[in-house]
Amino acid sequence: MLRVAVLGAGRIGQIHAANVAASPKADLVVVADPVEAAAVSTAQRLNSEFSTDPYTVIGRSDIDAVIIGTPTDTHVPLTLAALAAGKAVLCEKPLDLDQNKANAAITEIEKTGRPFMLAFNRRFDPSASEMKRAIEAGEVGDVRQVVITSRDPSPPPADYVRRSGGIFRDMLIHDFDMARWLLGEDPTEVYAIGSCLVDARIADLNDFDTTMVVMRAPSGKQCHINTCRHASYGHDQRIEVFGSKGMLQNGHVRPHTVNRFTEQATGSQAPLLHFFLERYKQAYELELEAFLETLQSGREMPVTADDGRKALALAEAALRSVKTRSGVAME
Amino acid sequence: MLRVAVLGAGRIGQIHAANVAASPKADLVVVADPVEAAAVSTAQRLNSEFSTDPYTVIGRSDIDAVIIGTPTDTHVPLTLAALAAGKAVLCEKPLDLDQNKANAAITEIEKTGRPFMLAFNRRFDPSASEMKRAIEAGEVGDVRQVVITSRDPSPPPADYVRRSGGIFRDMLIHDFDMARWLLGEDPTEVYAIGSCLVDARIADLNDFDTTMVVMRAPSGKQCHINTCRHASYGHDQRIEVFGSKGMLQNGHVRPHTVNRFTEQATGSQAPLLHFFLERYKQAYELELEAFLETLQSGREMPVTADDGRKALALAEAALRSVKTRSGVAME
Amino acid sequence: MLRVAVLGAGRIGQIHAANVAASPKADLVVVADPVEAAAVSTAQRLNSEFSTDPYTVIGRSDIDAVIIGTPTDTHVPLTLAALAAGKAVLCEKPLDLDQNKANAAITEIEKTGRPFMLAFNRRFDPSASEMKRAIEAGEVGDVRQVVITSRDPSPPPADYVRRSGGIFRDMLIHDFDMARWLLGEDPTEVYAIGSCLVDARIADLNDFDTTMVVMRAPSGKQCHINTCRHASYGHDQRIEVFGSKGMLQNGHVRPHTVNRFTEQATGSQAPLLHFFLERYKQAYELELEAFLETLQSGREMPVTADDGRKALALAEAALRSVKTRSGVAME
Amino acid sequence: MLRVAVLGAGRIGQIHAANVAASPKADLVVVADPVEAAAVSTAQRLNSEFSTDPYTVIGRSDIDAVIIGTPTDTHVPLTLAALAAGKAVLCEKPLDLDQNKANAAITEIEKTGRPFMLAFNRRFDPSASEMKRAIEAGEVGDVRQVVITSRDPSPPPADYVRRSGGIFRDMLIHDFDMARWLLGEDPTEVYAIGSCLVDARIADLNDFDTTMVVMRAPSGKQCHINTCRHASYGHDQRIEVFGSKGMLQNGHVRPHTVNRFTEQATGSQAPLLHFFLERYKQAYELELEAFLETLQSGREMPVTADDGRKALALAEAALRSVKTRSGVAME
Repeated sequence: MLRVAVLGAGRIGQIHAANVAASPKADLVVVADPVEAAAVSTAQRLNSEFSTDPYTVIGRSDIDAVIIGTPTDTHVPLTLAALAAGKAVLCEKPLDLDQNKANAAITEIEKTGRPFMLAFNRRFDPSASEMKRAIEAGEVGDVRQVVITSRDPSPPPADYVRRSGGIFRDMLIHDFDMARWLLGEDPTEVYAIGSCLVDARIADLNDFDTTMVVMRAPSGKQCHINTCRHASYGHDQRIEVFGSKGMLQNGHVRPHTVNRFTEQATGSQAPLLHFFLERYKQAYELELEAFLETLQSGREMPVTADDGRKALALAEAALRSVKTRSGVAME
Repeated sequence: MLRVAVLGAGRIGQIHAANVAASPKADLVVVADPVEAAAVSTAQRLNSEFSTDPYTVIGRSDIDAVIIGTPTDTHVPLTLAALAAGKAVLCEKPLDLDQNKANAAITEIEKTGRPFMLAFNRRFDPSASEMKRAIEAGEVGDVRQVVITSRDPSPPPADYVRRSGGIFRDMLIHDFDMARWLLGEDPTEVYAIGSCLVDARIADLNDFDTTMVVMRAPSGKQCHINTCRHASYGHDQRIEVFGSKGMLQNGHVRPHTVNRFTEQATGSQAPLLHFFLERYKQAYELELEAFLETLQSGREMPVTADDGRKALALAEAALRSVKTRSGVAME
Repeated sequence: MLRVAVLGAGRIGQIHAANVAASPKADLVVVADPVEAAAVSTAQRLNSEFSTDPYTVIGRSDIDAVIIGTPTDTHVPLTLAALAAGKAVLCEKPLDLDQNKANAAITEIEKTGRPFMLAFNRRFDPSASEMKRAIEAGEVGDVRQVVITSRDPSPPPADYVRRSGGIFRDMLIHDFDMARWLLGEDPTEVYAIGSCLVDARIADLNDFDTTMVVMRAPSGKQCHINTCRHASYGHDQRIEVFGSKGMLQNGHVRPHTVNRFTEQATGSQAPLLHFFLERYKQAYELELEAFLETLQSGREMPVTADDGRKALALAEAALRSVKTRSGVAME
Repeated sequence: MLRVAVLGAGRIGQIHAANVAASPKADLVVVADPVEAAAVSTAQRLNSEFSTDPYTVIGRSDIDAVIIGTPTDTHVPLTLAALAAGKAVLCEKPLDLDQNKANAAITEIEKTGRPFMLAFNRRFDPSASEMKRAIEAGEVGDVRQVVITSRDPSPPPADYVRRSGGIFRDMLIHDFDMARWLLGEDPTEVYAIGSCLVDARIADLNDFDTTMVVMRAPSGKQCHINTCRHASYGHDQRIEVFGSKGMLQNGHVRPHTVNRFTEQATGSQAPLLHFFLERYKQAYELELEAFLETLQSGREMPVTADDGRKALALAEAALRSVKTRSGVAME
């Protein structure tokens, strides 16, 4: 059994802590959060210890792995401290909002050679991993186009937007990772457009709420991403992979499967699951399983620090493209 | 080119006439209806002759085939006259509402040895014929269960109900034919229940508007039919074939394929096509093609008078079952 | 927090124990099974005590509720002992394979006036409960027909069949409960047919593997059930509710949502979840939540002993109908 | 009744001629094609006159309208001759492969003030026109993003590619028209990428077989188009309209609606209709109806010469963007 500490008892921290507690591969030893009430509440519910000091927890000898679900500006110092203390780390993304700082940290992380996994949780969604499996098994032949749709149910508060690094770094970062992963190749040409059609306050912050991206890989493979900070019908998460032998698409996930037929409409289904916590519940569980299993097996982590570096580079390129109204070539 | 006369210029007659006119295999020579205005209007629109006397038309030497879409009580005399005159006949069902009269006519039809086809049009619906093809190709293995759903958009006028012979003879007759055809076997045990849940006037006429039937064939294969004279969401026509190797189901047919996602519902589609004229438009065309092609090839007709006899026998058995609250064994 | 003991550490017992352990409303105190290894393994995994003697567990004063997932012949004695000891009970169905014994036990259960819930888990499937909610909210108007399809992925071993009480008592019992619940009325007329199309050994045991049932309620509402012990494409669990204002249908549940388009076929989806443990995973969780919540609130249990009595009566009537080839009237 | 001549008896000409013959609004007077056998065959089948000289036909006083389905290089001279002779014209697109020549012709067409309609047939597809209707009725609120997928079943012969003007002018021209029509606005910023992933001969001709486009309208509305000259699963034609209040998507069109469930896959449907002649059969019929109805009513044509000009301008911009790897601003 792996002995795990969860740092952060906010929304994401609670999810990780509950998944650790339920996993047959791990013991949840301690939950740490500077906000004592948060740490205590999660720890009590899950029968673990609590702490208000993450760094003390990192120093404990009875901990094998640390899961970091704290605020973004603490990701890098906590990660580096935990790795230095010989722990394996699963860290929420992004490592840092600043590309230079993030890249410097990634270099340090890689130097340690310790097990580190970045939490690109969507790769562990059962439909996404089935697509990856099918691609690798050759079931769609050579991939030609990947089309990703990613729309949120409602825009975040202005304060969040201000600290988010902007829609490309904050929201599309997942889609850039998905694109790289499914293309099996790094795009070298990026073009993006951005509009503010949902919320004027986002425009005031020089950010966008509606974007489209196209990317081209050296082999000629293409990828399109479209996103919006608001969709009236819920969290719209779609992926399409088109190859020489066929096409794969994921479907929507809903709270139940009831179809309704009335005089007005037929085959009507429930609204989509509201947002990422609901939509990716299973992905969070499977992400943890993958982390724990990889630790036990000693294999390379399924998502690396370098994946974070490369997704962030695409986000930066997209941002530059919007500003220059020109395609951006990746080095 | 086969020279065709269409008898009857009502709703069904007009459909047949238009399909003949559009077919590359046939010439529409004449449309006959005692109501002169109806005959003239259809004939003009389709560039054919018209007549107000079906029997004169039947006697013409320049006619190869006659399509009978007249009122039910004329089906038998017109059919027998046309066959006697050496014409091939495609006749709307039922031959007669009275089982004895229908069966007597069928015996006479069979004696003539002339090409005669009964218009069980649903067999020619592209999804129904694909199911039949797949069954015969062994794609679902041995058929175990057939489930048929047949609901009309709204009940007919009381006057129609009075003359209809009741829901089993009038409406389920199609479903009994479909059951026999897809089972590939004649059910020998029939059980039915009937309720009046839609329209009290139907109860006043000792008829039902909502029914369920189960049937068992000698091999043990089973069939269920459920029907209703009213469905708020349109003409619901579904067939399911379940066999040892898999299952086939047809889908709904709608005027367009648009799906709608809103805050209230997702994946909502258009109402179903309203009723049989819209739903089975293509089936009527393909039924005519099958009739013409079979005539040209000299093969046996795809729907025979005997098919009419056997479907009617199941309807009679179902009616007896409702009244006796007991299973009815077919001889 | 409710203190819960789980009796039985087999397949079902393990599911209940894990759900109790994960529930914020309950503590899993002890898992009991005469097979010590089974009790120990489940208890260790879930951090609870273990016991090899269910009756000792029932007698403990630190237990509020007992969940019974033991072999069928122990359901009645354990239930009565637990109720006598003042515990609330959630018991797997059936109470007993013999209708007389089951009914006698139900009378005793009802006399105790203690909280007792029978585990008709399918009512707690999110799609089933959404249908019930929609019916009660009047969204489909007056219910006219309920159609239930229930097919298993593969027949049970002959030994299980022998002890099962036959397909109507063992398999359709769930569907009879669902029918009563969704009709909102008790059928008074039952007709059933049975065939043996899957496995000749089942015929040797005088049992059936393929059945169809129709039922009629006093108001004229109708219900059809079709079942099979084998479906090549997985555990097929469908419910359709047709009412005066519209229709509800549940959809299939699959391990992921990927659709596949190839030269051979389009829109192909994954095989269905294999069997009831996978298909009704969420239903088991929600069933437990309902039991615990009802206990806390003091309301009447959502599934009562009387529900068991009435579902069993329908199963007995169906069996009699098959044998007599006649409709069976319920008293 | 409008008296109509069809010029061209190739694939498209035959479709137009058959639709005219079947329309209650028009008489098919004559079919003209320099290839006498083609003209004769179509004319005979549809009971019309034939001619080998389109210009003679244009001069006939008993013709009200001319439908031009001849090779592209004759579109402009035939259109101008017919308009000069006082006929209404429905002309297949493109008017000319050369943007300058096409634009010059459009200016002349507009000067005549005679009824002229360009055959952007996809606007008349029932799902496309339902989307347009829903947008205009405000059902999705303000449109934010339009996503168009357009993939052909197989690449055209090299010879066709050579004369086609390239994928943007030949294939995406339809998608650019659809984009303008559904956005309700003219994009002013165009970016495109092109790859050759299907057929190396297309690369040899300096053309592409796989493309992605993004466009931005002045209001900030966005559009993405992706295309490929080959899709193993058939002619993939999808449109998505995403707005502030919801989303619309069209579905696939197949020859029948049968779903198949087997051990390998569930819900599998038939391959898509092969190519545009099958997929847009109904659109061709409705396009003709719209042309005839507009002629009779005297309203403005639903697709104008200016629509051709603007779709072509977007195609030219996309081509320039691919070559410059930069966004192209429209004047």
